[in-house]
Amino acid sequence: MVFSSSLLENAVNEFAKLPGIGKKTALRLVLHLIKQDKGEVAQFSEAVARMRNEIKFCKTCFNISDETVCHICSNRSRSNGILCVVENIRDVIAIESTQQFNGLYHVLGGVISPLDGIGPDQLTIDALVDRIKNEEIQEIIFALNPNIQGDTTIYYIGRKLTDLPVKITTIARGIAFGGELEYADEMTLAKSISNRIPVEHYVNAK
Amino acid sequence: MVFSSSLLENAVNEFAKLPGIGKKTALRLVLHLIKQDKGEVAQFSEAVARMRNEIKFCKTCFNISDETVCHICSNRSRSNGILCVVENIRDVIAIESTQQFNGLYHVLGGVISPLDGIGPDQLTIDALVDRIKNEEIQEIIFALNPNIQGDTTIYYIGRKLTDLPVKITTIARGIAFGGELEYADEMTLAKSISNRIPVEHYVNAK
Repeated sequence: MVFSSSLLENAVNEFAKLPGIGKKTALRLVLHLIKQDKGEVAQFSEAVARMRNEIKFCKTCFNISDETVCHICSNRSRSNGILCVVENIRDVIAIESTQQFNGLYHVLGGVISPLDGIGPDQLTIDALVDRIKNEEIQEIIFALNPNIQGDTTIYYIGRKLTDLPVKITTIARGIAFGGELEYADEMTLAKSISNRIPVEHYVNAK
Repeated sequence: MVFSSSLLENAVNEFAKLPGIGKKTALRLVLHLIKQDKGEVAQFSEAVARMRNEIKFCKTCFNISDETVCHICSNRSRSNGILCVVENIRDVIAIESTQQFNGLYHVLGGVISPLDGIGPDQLTIDALVDRIKNEEIQEIIFALNPNIQGDTTIYYIGRKLTDLPVKITTIARGIAFGGELEYADEMTLAKSISNRIPVEHYVNAK
């Protein structure tokens, strides 16, 4: 791409560094910004800069936060005996959006994946074990993506917790609501049969 | 979406204002930026802010520029007798990338489109006519998108130039290189037959 302006070129190159954004999309975004008011573009660039400079990670659960302790951990009306262990912040947002979970979270920051060079030490597993030892936690729910890395992580953490009086569960895996049996993969279908649930329980849960 | 941080929420909302970027994509981009060095994110936000604040439009051809006259207009080695009229800056970039055109440009800033409320007055048509009157321009090539709006614009400008000694051409329309006849629309195929070119000319042009 041949640019007639180095300012334009710089901005396009910066946008093109973002994941999933190629040069053409970057150019489209930058040309859109050029058409906007200066004030609006300043607001955009300030929001990005402030976010990166001022954002904190909650020292308890490692969720993203404006304060040193996030508003979920500091919320007294949430039940602090139940902990949902997730891979990243996106999962917290997804679960919070369901409004079905009233406990606390623990963000691992990833899952164990030797192929990607991610071992247990790079995750917040030690902090999680400390929380379970020191706080009065009765149950932890693993809400990890259902794949080898997720299962490995559950297995690894589970072994660290064997001597502790905590109930360990994982979110149900099965046919997604609105999904179709014939298109489900064998693994999912098999698990949904072996982990079948009583109908009265299913009806009440809805 | 429920956010645990207003800084995060602001940044996501700003990204989601960009065309073609929804909330989920915006969140993915912002979480990517959080993982980057503070310096890199500062570089991103500064590039965007500087671009918007300092960018200029060439006073001759209305192309985007760092100076008051763009480096294409001020380039003495380009032939200034031939002018390529395009809709927007993206088209200049596309044509420059072909390295096949050595003349100058004129960016209209759009095409006449009454349905979108764009009339001739919102475009740089008067400036184009002035250039043709005052500069020594022998030919103008219309490189507008082949649709009703583009053709209307060509017709409108063409009428304004009837008394001026300037040759008016338009880029060839036909079957795209690598395209297939059977999938071409009737209009394109019909035009490609009525505007057929001598084979020796085609071979030489390659």
